[in-house]
Amino acid sequence: MYEGIVQDLIDEFGRLPGIGPKSAQRITFHILQTRSFDVQRLSELLVEVREKVRFCSKCGNVTEEELCSVCRDPRRDTTLLCVVEEPKDVLAIEKTRQFKGLYHVLGGAISPIDGIGPDDLSIAQLMQRLASEDIHEVIIATDPNLEGEATAAYLSRLLKTIEVPVSRLASGLPVGGDLEFADEVTLGRAFEGRQPRT
Amino acid sequence: MYEGIVQDLIDEFGRLPGIGPKSAQRITFHILQTRSFDVQRLSELLVEVREKVRFCSKCGNVTEEELCSVCRDPRRDTTLLCVVEEPKDVLAIEKTRQFKGLYHVLGGAISPIDGIGPDDLSIAQLMQRLASEDIHEVIIATDPNLEGEATAAYLSRLLKTIEVPVSRLASGLPVGGDLEFADEVTLGRAFEGRQPRT
Repeated sequence: MYEGIVQDLIDEFGRLPGIGPKSAQRITFHILQTRSFDVQRLSELLVEVREKVRFCSKCGNVTEEELCSVCRDPRRDTTLLCVVEEPKDVLAIEKTRQFKGLYHVLGGAISPIDGIGPDDLSIAQLMQRLASEDIHEVIIATDPNLEGEATAAYLSRLLKTIEVPVSRLASGLPVGGDLEFADEVTLGRAFEGRQPRT
Repeated sequence: MYEGIVQDLIDEFGRLPGIGPKSAQRITFHILQTRSFDVQRLSELLVEVREKVRFCSKCGNVTEEELCSVCRDPRRDTTLLCVVEEPKDVLAIEKTRQFKGLYHVLGGAISPIDGIGPDDLSIAQLMQRLASEDIHEVIIATDPNLEGEATAAYLSRLLKTIEVPVSRLASGLPVGGDLEFADEVTLGRAFEGRQPRT
């Protein structure tokens, strides 16, 4: 243990996700020893982000305004709605430049182990949007893991009641990967979802 | 890219050692979404650490006072001096509870590639301490890598001129490890430094 505030700062960094005690120590010493590191800026940004950043009142994405940059963009196709778990998923999809519709951020996935049920996600807001907006297709883009699949299954069932076309992102082999290193489930999915070559 | 200050905070976290863009994003969203995380405290500690923490005027360890807790402790054996590269090495050695002497923190290791020569380390201060303090043994505890070994070799040669007994920490197999997984150099060192069983 270090003395006083050095240890306090190590402890605070250690509370952040993915930072263990060793990394926290390394970061703290970097801050102590690297005079060029702008500690003031990081310090101010931390408080500013917490104060100013909020969630888009329409889709739940992060923004500093009432609506996020996607919802504000008049060039987006408002008839396509992509449902994701987290704001970071919006960014991941935006990077592909393939999707030109709008998003709906659930704020997580159904996970009974963590005590997260459908009511803890913004599913009621999703149903409201589907009732009031003119949406022709809902693309479910939750994570391809247990919680994401459970959430996708729940949503699919729910959306059948209002007769809107629903699709799910394809599962299969990651591009650039080796077939022999794919796990059985992924390889199985790749067979199930095989596409005819044209 | 996110909008405005969210991306700014991601960028700032990304400048810290060991934090890539993905981790920086994860940490930023954790701070945004976890209301229980005390952003104010982290923010204040960052500035406080930079303002209050300095290096012990005697040994170079971190402290909030003029002298560090080791140098201030009257129970330490002032005839033993352990030379380390960084303040974090002091902590690592303190955790063993095996060493009761004092430290001297060099502030790095000799590394021509990084442009760090003997004059960039606190070697002059070390020689001053050896001249003014009653030291019976210098234990060189620099890292067992290229830079650390070069620094140890340089110090050994230099200290020969003032006739103080010098030792170097043993290299060999890490305790709890498997012999078959040890690299050739470490295994070679373990043979060189083998100890008679009593």
